[in-house]
Amino acid sequence: MTQLRELGELETPILLTCTLCVWNAADALVGWMLEQPGMGNVRSINPVVAETNDGTLNAIRARPVRAEHVRAALGAASVGRVAEGSVGAGTGTVAFGWKGGIGTSSRVLPTALGGWTVGVLVQSNFGGILQVLGAPVGKELGQYAYKRESQPPADRGDGSIVMVVATDAPLSDRNLERLAARAIMGLARTGSSASNGSGDYVLAFSTNPKVRRPMSARRLATEELANEEMSALFEAAVESTEEAIYNSLFAATATTGNGRTVEAIPLDKVRAILDKYRVTSR
Amino acid sequence: MTQLRELGELETPILLTCTLCVWNAADALVGWMLEQPGMGNVRSINPVVAETNDGTLNAIRARPVRAEHVRAALGAASVGRVAEGSVGAGTGTVAFGWKGGIGTSSRVLPTALGGWTVGVLVQSNFGGILQVLGAPVGKELGQYAYKRESQPPADRGDGSIVMVVATDAPLSDRNLERLAARAIMGLARTGSSASNGSGDYVLAFSTNPKVRRPMSARRLATEELANEEMSALFEAAVESTEEAIYNSLFAATATTGNGRTVEAIPLDKVRAILDKYRVTSR
Amino acid sequence: MTQLRELGELETPILLTCTLCVWNAADALVGWMLEQPGMGNVRSINPVVAETNDGTLNAIRARPVRAEHVRAALGAASVGRVAEGSVGAGTGTVAFGWKGGIGTSSRVLPTALGGWTVGVLVQSNFGGILQVLGAPVGKELGQYAYKRESQPPADRGDGSIVMVVATDAPLSDRNLERLAARAIMGLARTGSSASNGSGDYVLAFSTNPKVRRPMSARRLATEELANEEMSALFEAAVESTEEAIYNSLFAATATTGNGRTVEAIPLDKVRAILDKYRVTSR
Amino acid sequence: MTQLRELGELETPILLTCTLCVWNAADALVGWMLEQPGMGNVRSINPVVAETNDGTLNAIRARPVRAEHVRAALGAASVGRVAEGSVGAGTGTVAFGWKGGIGTSSRVLPTALGGWTVGVLVQSNFGGILQVLGAPVGKELGQYAYKRESQPPADRGDGSIVMVVATDAPLSDRNLERLAARAIMGLARTGSSASNGSGDYVLAFSTNPKVRRPMSARRLATEELANEEMSALFEAAVESTEEAIYNSLFAATATTGNGRTVEAIPLDKVRAILDKYRVTSR
Repeated sequence: MTQLRELGELETPILLTCTLCVWNAADALVGWMLEQPGMGNVRSINPVVAETNDGTLNAIRARPVRAEHVRAALGAASVGRVAEGSVGAGTGTVAFGWKGGIGTSSRVLPTALGGWTVGVLVQSNFGGILQVLGAPVGKELGQYAYKRESQPPADRGDGSIVMVVATDAPLSDRNLERLAARAIMGLARTGSSASNGSGDYVLAFSTNPKVRRPMSARRLATEELANEEMSALFEAAVESTEEAIYNSLFAATATTGNGRTVEAIPLDKVRAILDKYRVTSR
Repeated sequence: MTQLRELGELETPILLTCTLCVWNAADALVGWMLEQPGMGNVRSINPVVAETNDGTLNAIRARPVRAEHVRAALGAASVGRVAEGSVGAGTGTVAFGWKGGIGTSSRVLPTALGGWTVGVLVQSNFGGILQVLGAPVGKELGQYAYKRESQPPADRGDGSIVMVVATDAPLSDRNLERLAARAIMGLARTGSSASNGSGDYVLAFSTNPKVRRPMSARRLATEELANEEMSALFEAAVESTEEAIYNSLFAATATTGNGRTVEAIPLDKVRAILDKYRVTSR
Repeated sequence: MTQLRELGELETPILLTCTLCVWNAADALVGWMLEQPGMGNVRSINPVVAETNDGTLNAIRARPVRAEHVRAALGAASVGRVAEGSVGAGTGTVAFGWKGGIGTSSRVLPTALGGWTVGVLVQSNFGGILQVLGAPVGKELGQYAYKRESQPPADRGDGSIVMVVATDAPLSDRNLERLAARAIMGLARTGSSASNGSGDYVLAFSTNPKVRRPMSARRLATEELANEEMSALFEAAVESTEEAIYNSLFAATATTGNGRTVEAIPLDKVRAILDKYRVTSR
Repeated sequence: MTQLRELGELETPILLTCTLCVWNAADALVGWMLEQPGMGNVRSINPVVAETNDGTLNAIRARPVRAEHVRAALGAASVGRVAEGSVGAGTGTVAFGWKGGIGTSSRVLPTALGGWTVGVLVQSNFGGILQVLGAPVGKELGQYAYKRESQPPADRGDGSIVMVVATDAPLSDRNLERLAARAIMGLARTGSSASNGSGDYVLAFSTNPKVRRPMSARRLATEELANEEMSALFEAAVESTEEAIYNSLFAATATTGNGRTVEAIPLDKVRAILDKYRVTSR
């Protein structure tokens, strides 16, 4: 995080994993990068690895992620449809009391607003009282991950979420940081209050070549959006994050681990609640 | 803000006013404080004055707030019911395309969670697509303060909101800052995306004597809540902020200035929409 | 500060004044700007006014700076030699126990490093144990503004410094913030430890047209220096700040106010100390 | 860093190592902690591991630090005299062009100022133009780690330093962060300008039981120092850091690696320079 803030530069792919798996994953990512062509003299890499704690379902104390898993993931990375639900770093996560996981969503701005795309990918592993586009799904289903009743909370909260925001808009690092902040607003709309132990994290980056920094350049000729162009992108980030979280729940499947099973959210019941609250007909 | 962050100390009452009125208000506040008993040798005061830009209805270039207004406000400050709607610094504000203003709300935690109160007061002057407890009021009423259509936005955004969070829970300055961050999550739930020009601001403070700092103390004996006690307070801050914003709209009345009239949100129509989306019967 | 950080934009000249004079100065600056040609429709200005507390010599409780003073200063602003010492916002300041004031210094980089200029202007009003290019001037002269002896400090510290860093290098707002941070390192070299009550502040800006933001531009074509070009600029900022502080002391003259006189540092004695410690012959 | 800032809590010993060794070291530290008595149910640990890049002397691409080294270091940790120079994470570091390493220093405040101790430990691996208590040692010895001549810098800077500040004063997390910031001022006094690629880092913690947080406490009864007590501690941190850096150089010994040898700073010549500039007789 220090380098992202200080230099505005991302040096590696972004990995998502479990809390106690971060360091093995980071070391494997660095090892893989050092082997890439042209990297023979590189002696410094700051890998970016994010995590949430899936210790409910995952035997996390064993730090099960090994170098071969990281290399397999990096080797299999591709463009195209993103796997959602109980996959990858979302295999063991829990959100709002149901099975969480990986979710993604995006928005494309109208041409007159630039035509830019904002895409969000989340690893959902947090609590709150789920609302879906305003419909009180959590209350209707009697599922409160964070109980607001009379007993004091027994632990340090109800987990975290990682949100990665990607855009093809040519944004400065400062405006990327502002864009990242809006993902928290999308998170809020799903019913989270970012409970105490949460390490909710957002990373935003741009793929636009006009803000790319050539390795040996002494001057950077960039063409970036003015601050005044940001509002539509902000709204896209809020909406994409909200929807990505829903998708992470809706695509997840029941998962068993550590002798516990966490169920998927019942889609038929969700649909009925959305009908009841007229979300589907808006 | 620098002092609040650096020293964790609030030295004055918090004033809310209009953007170009800040400095007259601050100077008057300082003048008033210097006259208070026991302040005869004070040579440094860092006043806290927040603002939103009500230039649509207010002849803001004239900087109409004068010392006598500030003194009158300070003299009239009292405990008891808070005036809401088109009053004070909310007289000329606009929110979601309707008349905004001052709103307030609070939550009291269950005894087992500490029984603490969290209260929020807002000065609403911002845009977005209003949703009320999830019901799409803005869309139903055809009112988008920030138009998402084809024309590029003509200005620097759609305004700002000031949110003041007060609690009687004994919180460290660090946990007050965390509490303040949750007000943004309440704001998000009303339909804001914090557009580009917004200077959305939150200030949080505690009234609990156990975190008060005596003027001449060399050591502070405090009794503050552990981090693990914060989750319920966070949720209270999110909910109170959301509701305070609704109250600022619902209590506001149509206001004319600069040759323009901004209407109050039509409460009967809002009620019908809340019925339609079953908000009222939840 | 919020806007400088959030938008990376400076809207006004930078004023320096006394602590309790900030708001009158800011209001006058805004009033002056609203009257400028082409500003007839402007309804938002975020003025930048910095301060240190000169209440030892200044009858600060009277908030003596009035609009006419601000207008006179703005009208008289010009290119050319900068007045130093007991002038302007430095009239009443105290540094290291002697008369402080305004000081300035600059460095020009070698052509191969870009040939950029870094200039620093300071308003010195702080304490510590003065060292001049390493020579222990404060100790030799028996002058410790902050006494390290046995009695507890009686107040909130020993004042503050404002440092303004200007450069013609084309820097991003992020790199300007990094440049600003180096001014603190120059401050440290003079013998400051940034005591408790200090509100030491740095502002950095670039005058280079290649990072200027045209008012109505939707895209900004900038040509900024790569991070890798910053090291020499950092060193220039450290050195210029250190020297500007010395200049603020060396150019200051004895000043009387509030029934007290603060003497100028005795230049002949300083010179002798610099000789003794071979600073002059380096 | 996120947790230290957000929760103000340090969960593990602090390890120092080399840039590409961080993740193996962190994983080993976590593994070691999970095995400690009473840790059988722990599923979350945020280890603190700092680094500088010693790739000049260290075959860093091999990530040579292994779990057994970390366990040996943790097992051997003890109270008492701290090893300095070319040891541990300082084995391969370079500072100001000479062999750097581990250095430590401390200050004890007078009883009337609280009698607190501030201790600093550094891992020096950075550049600049060395000055020792003001004497221009770097210039006299013709050693500029960062050359200010006509050729552009060939790399991303000249390294970093890690500074760890420990105190027995009962400080809030906020005041610990302020104390940490003063270490940068000690660094500045040695001749650093914190060049571009530097990741200069400071961590500060308190050992005082009156700010310790019991694991299961719902309220924290703390007795911390008022802000007004901080100035003397700040000065102690500045001085200790400056001296710790000198000690890291003076205790280091010539080291060979990667086919290169970095010499220790010649102490006899340093002593002569300190005599010449009358540092020794102050």
